Amino acid sequence: MSFWKNLFSGQSNSSTATSTLTPVPSGDANPTAERSGTSRIFFSKEKEIDVQELEELCDAVGWSRRPLRKVKKAIEHSFIVVSMWEQRGSYRRLIGFSRATSDHAFNATIWDVVVHPQFQQRGLGKALMQQIIKELRREDISNITLFADPGVVNFYRNLGFRPDPEGIKGMFWYPNSR
Amino acid sequence: MSFWKNLFSGQSNSSTATSTLTPVPSGDANPTAERSGTSRIFFSKEKEIDVQELEELCDAVGWSRRPLRKVKKAIEHSFIVVSMWEQRGSYRRLIGFSRATSDHAFNATIWDVVVHPQFQQRGLGKALMQQIIKELRREDISNITLFADPGVVNFYRNLGFRPDPEGIKGMFWYPNSR
Repeated sequence: MSFWKNLFSGQSNSSTATSTLTPVPSGDANPTAERSGTSRIFFSKEKEIDVQELEELCDAVGWSRRPLRKVKKAIEHSFIVVSMWEQRGSYRRLIGFSRATSDHAFNATIWDVVVHPQFQQRGLGKALMQQIIKELRREDISNITLFADPGVVNFYRNLGFRPDPEGIKGMFWYPNSR
Repeated sequence: MSFWKNLFSGQSNSSTATSTLTPVPSGDANPTAERSGTSRIFFSKEKEIDVQELEELCDAVGWSRRPLRKVKKAIEHSFIVVSMWEQRGSYRRLIGFSRATSDHAFNATIWDVVVHPQFQQRGLGKALMQQIIKELRREDISNITLFADPGVVNFYRNLGFRPDPEGIKGMFWYPNSR
């Protein structure tokens, strides 16, 4: 089952992401777009993602390669997966990704938020995050959390995330640090 | 399927918890314990927990009551659940609880760590945490995380958890803070 969501639809909160992109009418294959070279951006909740393509995306932002078998398992057991695609004619390209683990009731934690370098600085990371937040809220998750590298704390702050609220500390276990 | 683990078995890392408790031989019902009034502590990975009993435990440490239906759902969709029980004769009492969400591959986040006030200050919280860490490591989870209230940061630090490692910030989303 595919879930494709046009970035430019009225339902989307992603108007910030339209500035450098040309919206085209909806439709999985769009010969007009192919002829004119215009593109459109889609979101998908589909978990059936080519993990090789995902790892190439992660590679493009400098992340370490991970075993494909484990990546596949992690996606399968994520509560929500939101991927972002550029469609140019009949050609689709994975340009962004995010996923969240959850207890399906109270808490979710967002992992692996990535936007391809060629598509950064366009508001697409913000659009991607708004999409996954919307999906988690739709599932009635009240506590949405993440762990942010120092360089992206302000990015998440602008999306409504607060670091260390009421002194709550994010902590990581290190086997050799006891 | 029940998974009962004696706190005092050789396999357990929980020797710190034995100081004020009297170990008795293993067995689900132990007439010796019943006669002598001695007790033993067990861990269980069983998800079939009486959520009413769990919420009474959480109530005892001052947590807000939660809808039982959602608590049940959260437990069902947790990756690992470790509960801690006192057995005195044939009487079992839930005295501690912890659970973790996970993608079953890379990351886990531990939630709802609680020990009944009557059983605190005995090393049982440490034993409970060591148990859930051991279970997560057994499942090959490399990134074990949690969010700690200010008052328990040092408790988790002593267990090998580091706050904000390399500047990574735990962040929470607040719908009205944008």
